[in-house]
Formats: sequence, structure tokens, C-alpha cells
Amino acid sequence: MKRTTDLRGDLSRINKAAIAAVDPVTCLQRAVRLEGSRLVVGDRSVDLSPIERIIVVGMGKASARMAAALEGILSERISCGLVVTADGYAAPTERVTIVCAAHPIPDARGLAAAERIASLVDGAGENDLVIVLISGGGSALLSLPAPGIELDDLSKVNELLLRSGARIQEMNTVRKHLSQVKGGQLACRAFPAQVITLILSDVPGDPLNAIASGPTVADPTTFQQVERILRGRRLWDSVPSSVRARIEGGLRGEIDETPKPGDPALQRVNTAVIGSGALAAEAALAEGERLGYNTLLLSTTLEGEAREVGRVLASLAREEVRHQRPLPLPALIIAAGETTVAVKGDGKGGRNQELALAAALGIEGLPGVVICSLGTDGRDGPTDAAGGAVDGGTVGRMRERGIDPEEYLEQNNSYKALEEARDLIVTGPTGTNVADLCLILVGKQE
Amino acid sequence: MKRTTDLRGDLSRINKAAIAAVDPVTCLQRAVRLEGSRLVVGDRSVDLSPIERIIVVGMGKASARMAAALEGILSERISCGLVVTADGYAAPTERVTIVCAAHPIPDARGLAAAERIASLVDGAGENDLVIVLISGGGSALLSLPAPGIELDDLSKVNELLLRSGARIQEMNTVRKHLSQVKGGQLACRAFPAQVITLILSDVPGDPLNAIASGPTVADPTTFQQVERILRGRRLWDSVPSSVRARIEGGLRGEIDETPKPGDPALQRVNTAVIGSGALAAEAALAEGERLGYNTLLLSTTLEGEAREVGRVLASLAREEVRHQRPLPLPALIIAAGETTVAVKGDGKGGRNQELALAAALGIEGLPGVVICSLGTDGRDGPTDAAGGAVDGGTVGRMRERGIDPEEYLEQNNSYKALEEARDLIVTGPTGTNVADLCLILVGKQE
Repeated sequence: MKRTTDLRGDLSRINKAAIAAVDPVTCLQRAVRLEGSRLVVGDRSVDLSPIERIIVVGMGKASARMAAALEGILSERISCGLVVTADGYAAPTERVTIVCAAHPIPDARGLAAAERIASLVDGAGENDLVIVLISGGGSALLSLPAPGIELDDLSKVNELLLRSGARIQEMNTVRKHLSQVKGGQLACRAFPAQVITLILSDVPGDPLNAIASGPTVADPTTFQQVERILRGRRLWDSVPSSVRARIEGGLRGEIDETPKPGDPALQRVNTAVIGSGALAAEAALAEGERLGYNTLLLSTTLEGEAREVGRVLASLAREEVRHQRPLPLPALIIAAGETTVAVKGDGKGGRNQELALAAALGIEGLPGVVICSLGTDGRDGPTDAAGGAVDGGTVGRMRERGIDPEEYLEQNNSYKALEEARDLIVTGPTGTNVADLCLILVGKQE
Repeated sequence: MKRTTDLRGDLSRINKAAIAAVDPVTCLQRAVRLEGSRLVVGDRSVDLSPIERIIVVGMGKASARMAAALEGILSERISCGLVVTADGYAAPTERVTIVCAAHPIPDARGLAAAERIASLVDGAGENDLVIVLISGGGSALLSLPAPGIELDDLSKVNELLLRSGARIQEMNTVRKHLSQVKGGQLACRAFPAQVITLILSDVPGDPLNAIASGPTVADPTTFQQVERILRGRRLWDSVPSSVRARIEGGLRGEIDETPKPGDPALQRVNTAVIGSGALAAEAALAEGERLGYNTLLLSTTLEGEAREVGRVLASLAREEVRHQRPLPLPALIIAAGETTVAVKGDGKGGRNQELALAAALGIEGLPGVVICSLGTDGRDGPTDAAGGAVDGGTVGRMRERGIDPEEYLEQNNSYKALEEARDLIVTGPTGTNVADLCLILVGKQE
């Protein structure tokens, strides 16, 4: 029989295996190799013989480590390059310059780096190969506003949209049309060079035009939609005049639309997702099977308000304990995705911790169950924890320490509650950044 | 290949099978039978030879039909009886009187019926058998406030608790201590008669002390807890003085506590859950298998904010369409339970409709998927629909009719949105009342 302590040991092994599987270096080495003069990426390859220069650019938290791994494969074949990453995410490289910038609010360092990246790809010719290394956080790190628009104008638009309740798709539609690189425009700048885009995806389901605002893929959205969004949300008159001028120029056809499917520049692009939440989930599943669990992968695009998702996962755990279904025991149920938190209180926590705290309330007193939610980057919200792992005794331990878990949940104060119950997961920065992982482990019942 | 229309046809068959399996008459006939002089209930039996009188009482929306079915088995062996049900839920009986009363707000008819039920069981002796027929709605229908407390006092307390954000467990703890029948007290009144309690459960997981406030099972809660709840929520000084007096009497030991485990009265009680959401889910699963689906029963205690649960179910559907997991196609995934809705808008809808509308947004454009949420009583919220069944075209149909589904969801206006998309499920009253059923059907993809 697996006791709670055994389950926690297994959980730790499973999480380690999942994170190792999406390490940027591992992913890049698995996906990319040299075979003679050919650079093989997944099931495609590029003949490097006619290539004059290989230019490496990148953006995102894991992109510096991707660049370092790529140097290990291509070494002096790389001519030059620049990767912009977040503070604390640099990696040692020899030919590719690494620049750190602020995240998630863009700063002048990011702007300067974006200008250098743009000029690098602008200079690429037909016989050059541009390799673009994309990972989570890339959109904020690669901010290059369109001519006449300042960074401050962009943040004002962002803020107005956020406050108006705009959805993430609407935000991205607007952002892409105020940028010189987002929404496929980086690929247009690189034309006529060949482009290989390698993506470590932090967006569940890996929608290519959403990851880092899709700098090298077709953008289905239009200036017309931007106008409709801003007018529909009654922001047209509030946005900076430079922004209105840009959109009006686009509507009059004086400014090029973002590239649409079929654009010749995009036909020079090969894209490969080299790591994702799905990959992490599959690795977790494989490790669970190795440890003797019956396994089920529920979803790789889990979403919803974190605490409500936690309640749903708790209902699955209860079914396992009481009725040994859907799986025979011991059971491991996994989902990857990204939940959200509508902040109401002023506590400290993150979406994974909040999910775990809510799940703890749903499995109070149940034997032989652990539920875990984990940010694969090792950083859940503005805390030093990666997430939480709770069991049937969690709520009791909280109450013993004078903590009312419902009240703490209400105040979005999951960090403190889990800390007191010794149920935080602290990994430190993992160096990667894909989706969150949710795991339910249920041992054989006595 | 199963097309969406095939899926909807299958769905209709599956839902019918599920509701038929929890029909009160079917459930009672399956669980109860006469073998010679013995009344067999599940794996237990009672010798009726020494029994002088069989008294039938009951409360709840399905209890009249349970009484009619019981008459079919015991006929003239029943001496007398009274069942209180909600308006519109009566059934033809010969020996058991059926009384209709208001639901969910108790009225004078319910109070009078409760008094008659109390006096029937008060008169039961050692050689009598009391059969208690419990179903959903029974708590409100069997309201018999403690001496000195008026119905109005009870509703004032309820309202104060609701407004203070009290949890359902807290509400029930208070209610049981202000009643003469809830929390095991009906069994005490019947003592020393034998008692058989037959339950059609509308509470996911079938916690016996929660269904209809558990009139014949042990109540773990105490007057001390009632005081703590009211003081903790700062309601002690606001509740009617009659309520305070009752609690103070209980604290001083002048009023008996509700019966606790081991109470001799409770040892005379045999309880059987004859129908539940789990049973409906299992019947749906069996029908799905018969129709050729690979099936998975996720949970029989699903809970959470309806729209968030809908998003989670949509994420499972996406995984099926894109990766054919967790099940090979065609796939049927089922969960039973009861979601909640925190009402913010002034629209018309119910928890099942709201779940379905949110799920529609999560499967927009996906082929070969139907997601359904259904109240087994045929009545979802204050509407004439039982729930909703949505597919990948639902959101498009809404937009064609000028409906913004996100906006309608925001306004809790799911009925109108689903009506326009022709995605309401309308069954009419089904005569039963167990948990809600959520189903995901995914056909083989072209």
C-alpha cells in the first residue's frame, strides 16, 4: 500500500522527471542535430552548404539557455546573434549576445535589444539562415513599438484594455498592430532569408500565433478588428493619439497589414515546438507508470479559475478513494494547462498555490491522496514557491496552526496557509517555462 | 464516423437511460420486495410477522411517487401514512395521504403536514414499523420549528446566515438545532418502533446527514457549534430572541442534543440509498457502452462554479479531439454532481445551462463534440429547461443571431443564448431528482 509519505516521494520524482523533460537544453538537443551538412529539426532539414550566415535571435525566459544549447550544436557556424531574456535568466554563450531586460513590464534595455534584433534580421539575405528561439515571456521582452509610438503609449493602451475587461485575444490583436515585430512581422523583416523558429511553448495547446505574439507566423487579425475592439470597449478616444494615427493609417491602407497565410515571407519559415506542457505531462505520466501507477492524462489545455479547477480535481480524487474509478489504484491523474486567478483579497500566493489550497478543502480527511499543482518555471505568482502539494491532513494542519483555510482562500492568501501546513513546493527557478502541471496521486486504500 | 447529429441522437438516448434508472418507482421496486413475510431492502430484511402497524411518512419532491410504488408492494399491509411533497409532485395513492406544500420557502401547509407526520411517528410503538421516504427538497418541505420558534424566525435566521456568507454545513448545523425533526430527531420520535429509511439522494456523494437534513441519522453537530457559528458571523445579537433562547437552553443542557452515533433510537434504523446521481451516471455509462462508446466516469461528486467546471470539461473535449486521449474515439466522459452559480447579472438561466454556455466557448469550432449538462429533475434554475447541450457550432449560431456569448455568460443569461442556438434541453418535469449529469461525447474525427 502506498501511504501519503510514499505518494509525496513519488510526486517529487514525477515532478522532477516532468521538469527535466522540458529543460530547454534537453529539448533543443532532442529536436535539433547536424547530419553532415544538413541541419535536422524534427522531420525536416535544411542544407547548410549554400548558407552564408547563420543569425540567431531569441526572446523569452528560456531563450538564453536554448541559445547556449544551439551553440553546442552549431558552434562556429553561427555568425552572430542576440537573445533578449529576463533578468536572472542569462546563460553563458560565445557567439550569441545575451541581453537581460525587465519582465513583464518592458523597459529601455528590452527596447534597445529589440532594435538590435530587428536590425540583425533586416540585414539577412537570401543565403542566410535566421534561427529564432522563442519561449515564454517573449512578447513583453521583444517590444518594438511602431514608428511614432512610445513604450509609454503601449503601456497606456495595455492598461486601458485590461481595465475594460478585454480578453487576451483582443489584447494580442491590438498589440500586434502597434508593433514592428509581432504577428509575423519579424519573419517579414528577415525575408528573403530562410527562417527556423524553435519554440518552447508556455501556452497550453501551443497556438503558434499566441506564443510570444507569434513573431514568425501568420496573423489572422486586422486593423479593422483593432478599431472595432477599441470602439467596442469605448477606448477609441482615450488611447494616445499616436496609436489612433497608426490604426487610421492601417485602415487607409497606408501601413502594411501583419502578414496573412500565404505571405511569401512566411513560406520561408519552418517552425518546431520543441517543448511544451504536453511534453511535461507525458514525461510525468511515463515516470508514474514506471513507479507502478495506473495513469490518465486528462487534458493538456486545462483552464479555469484556479480554485474552481482545484475543486474539480478534488472531486476526481474523492471518486478514486471511494470507488476506485476512473482508474484502479494506485492512480495517477495528470492535467497540464494554465488556470487564472481573479484577485479579490490582498494575500500572497499564485494560481498553483490557490488551486492546491482549494483542492485541500475538497479532500479533507481523505486517506492516501495527494493533489499537486506546480508551475514548471519554479515560480508561482510573486512568491518563491513553485506551487503546492496537499493531502487529506492539510486542512487539519492549517487549523492546528490557527489558519482558517476558507478565509485564507478568500483573501488569495494561499502561500501562508500552505507554508504553515508545510505543503509548499519550492524548487527554485527551474530554467524552463512551459504550462502548469496538476497531479492527483491516490494510493491503494487500507 | 459519428457526426454531431449522431452524437446528439446518442446523447438523447443516454440521458433517457440515465433518468429512467433513477425514476423513483423503478428505484423503489428495485430496492424493496416482499419474500414471504419478510420485507427485503437491499441486503437486509425485516420480518413483518410481529409487526402490528406499518406507518409510511415521507418528504421531498419524489416522495409521493416513492409512496405510490411502496403501496404497490405492501398494499393493505400499510396502516396509515402521510407524505409531504412540493406543488406539482403529487402521485395517486390509496393508503398514504399526499400533502403538497411550498418549496423552497416553507409555508403553513408544510408546517401542518410536518405536525401530522410528527404525531404519526410519535404514536408508533415497539411493534410498529415506520418507513421514511426521503428525497430532494425534503428539508424545506419538512419544517417543524422547535417550540417557541415561528416559521418566520427560521426564515430570518436563514436569510442572515446566507447574507453573512455562511457555508451550507453551517446553515445545516443551525437548522438542525432549531427543528423538532431534523438531524435524527424524527428517528428519536419514532423510538421504540423500527425504522426503515429509503433515500433517493440529490446530494452528490450521498452524505446521509445532509440529505433532507438527515431526519433519521446521527447528527455530529452540537449547540456549542451553533453558538460559535452565530457569534463568529456576528449574528448572535441579530437572530430572533426565540432562537437565542433555544440555543441557550441547549447550552445549559435543558434541551436535548440531536442524537449522536450510538443513540438507541438510531440503532432501530435501517437506511438504504435507493437512487442517486452515481446510479444515473452508471446507467448513462452503460447506455454509452451499448452505443459503442469508450467510456470514463470522472466523478460522482463534481462541484465548483458552473462556468469554470464548463471550461474544465471543454479542455477534456479538446484533448479528445486533438489527441484522442484519455479515451480512444468515440468517447463518452461522464461526471455527476452539483455545481453552483454566483449570480452577478440579472439574466435567466440555471447552473446546467451556464455550464453548457461556458463549455460552448471552450469548444468553439471543434468538430464532432457535444457537451451536455442536465438537471435530472428536468428543471434547471427558474426555467422550463433541464439544461443545455452544446457543440462546436454553438457559439457561431449565437453570433449569427446577434448574441455575444461571453456577454450573455457575464449576465447569467444562459437560457436566452442557448435558446437562440437551439441548444436548450427541455424534458419537462421528470418525476425524479438526483444530481446533475455532465456528459462529453466525442465522435471519430474525419
